Amino acid sequence: MLHMDERVDPTNLPQLVGLIGGTGPLGTGLARRLAGVVGEVRLGSREAGRAADVAASLPENVVGVANSEAARAEIVFVTVPWSSHRSVLESLAAELAGRIVVDCVNPLGFDADGPFAIDVPEGSAAEQAAAVLPGSTVVAAFHHVPASLLQEDAALDLDVMVVGDDGRAVEQVIGLIDGMGGLHGIAAGRLRNAGQVEALTANLIAINRRYRVHSGVRITGIHS
Amino acid sequence: MLHMDERVDPTNLPQLVGLIGGTGPLGTGLARRLAGVVGEVRLGSREAGRAADVAASLPENVVGVANSEAARAEIVFVTVPWSSHRSVLESLAAELAGRIVVDCVNPLGFDADGPFAIDVPEGSAAEQAAAVLPGSTVVAAFHHVPASLLQEDAALDLDVMVVGDDGRAVEQVIGLIDGMGGLHGIAAGRLRNAGQVEALTANLIAINRRYRVHSGVRITGIHS
Repeated sequence: MLHMDERVDPTNLPQLVGLIGGTGPLGTGLARRLAGVVGEVRLGSREAGRAADVAASLPENVVGVANSEAARAEIVFVTVPWSSHRSVLESLAAELAGRIVVDCVNPLGFDADGPFAIDVPEGSAAEQAAAVLPGSTVVAAFHHVPASLLQEDAALDLDVMVVGDDGRAVEQVIGLIDGMGGLHGIAAGRLRNAGQVEALTANLIAINRRYRVHSGVRITGIHS
Repeated sequence: MLHMDERVDPTNLPQLVGLIGGTGPLGTGLARRLAGVVGEVRLGSREAGRAADVAASLPENVVGVANSEAARAEIVFVTVPWSSHRSVLESLAAELAGRIVVDCVNPLGFDADGPFAIDVPEGSAAEQAAAVLPGSTVVAAFHHVPASLLQEDAALDLDVMVVGDDGRAVEQVIGLIDGMGGLHGIAAGRLRNAGQVEALTANLIAINRRYRVHSGVRITGIHS
């Protein structure tokens, strides 16, 4: 049973969201879904021209910009590859100060035995973001939603675990998720518990390969 | 879509299973459900008398024994507290040699900020078990099933992620899980990916506290 009274007023949804490194499958999928909820989605890339090309095939209110422009939004999603996570965030620390940063990055590796979680010195990508961005409020979410499902108009019915230390930021992100249609945001603990949420993606990829599916996660017991 | 042809023949289900440290909520819950699937369940404790007392309120084919007797079964579940995980397994290494050991232990801590995952030098409880039990085949499962739901006769509909490096052992454990009624075993990767499955329990506990529920996990996309 969700406590709706603790939710952010939907009329308080942000009007401007950004995506850092938004040209990949997760970034474009999120942009497509976010476009239906907020006024403007700034899809960022290292190269603004590349972002503009990608945005051209997305809804009208998705605009392709440089990452530094995407970072100037009320809520900013980070969908860069793990390999550039630290360096990209370091370069945008000034722009991201004072904002809610939603880290969506899974630190994963692959070898002959399949996927595995990469050991992150800070504990998780999200905690690395918090260390690199002391002026931002970091939340982590969207680790398990199959990007392919976001691309389609298909009806979704998936839970999105949101972790973070700032309760208001977590609730704002949950409000946004709940507006995206078929996604249900769930407050799933503090930022120190982000690592296992990120790493679980390795198990989901193993499941995908084993059963030839696009697996996702639902949390049972919580929906009335 | 599950590949049923890859499943273990249900007629090959084990007839004798054991539970190491089986007197707690998860152990007794598993014993209750396993009793309907196998011939005999050996519920173990450090003190056989204590195990016998607990078994008295469980189905007839659950017998209370010393841990060393519970370890002499075809498939042995480990449901000890994390604090005694290493020492109990070390003391039973001889008895457990040659057997399938299903580690169900979550290395978790709690402080004023709630639950958190304990950093395990071996990577996970399951990998610690594999290190301590070189003669056994270690699989990990049952980290997220609320013990309270196993106790009741309530209908279940939960997925159980099973990780392990030995494909046949994983399939045998999945066969057992699928026989337990309302539980669905899913092969979820190699043992090196056990840590995040164990640690995710911290998030579920945070969810339980936040929403006042008994949360569990379902994997979407896999059930046809």
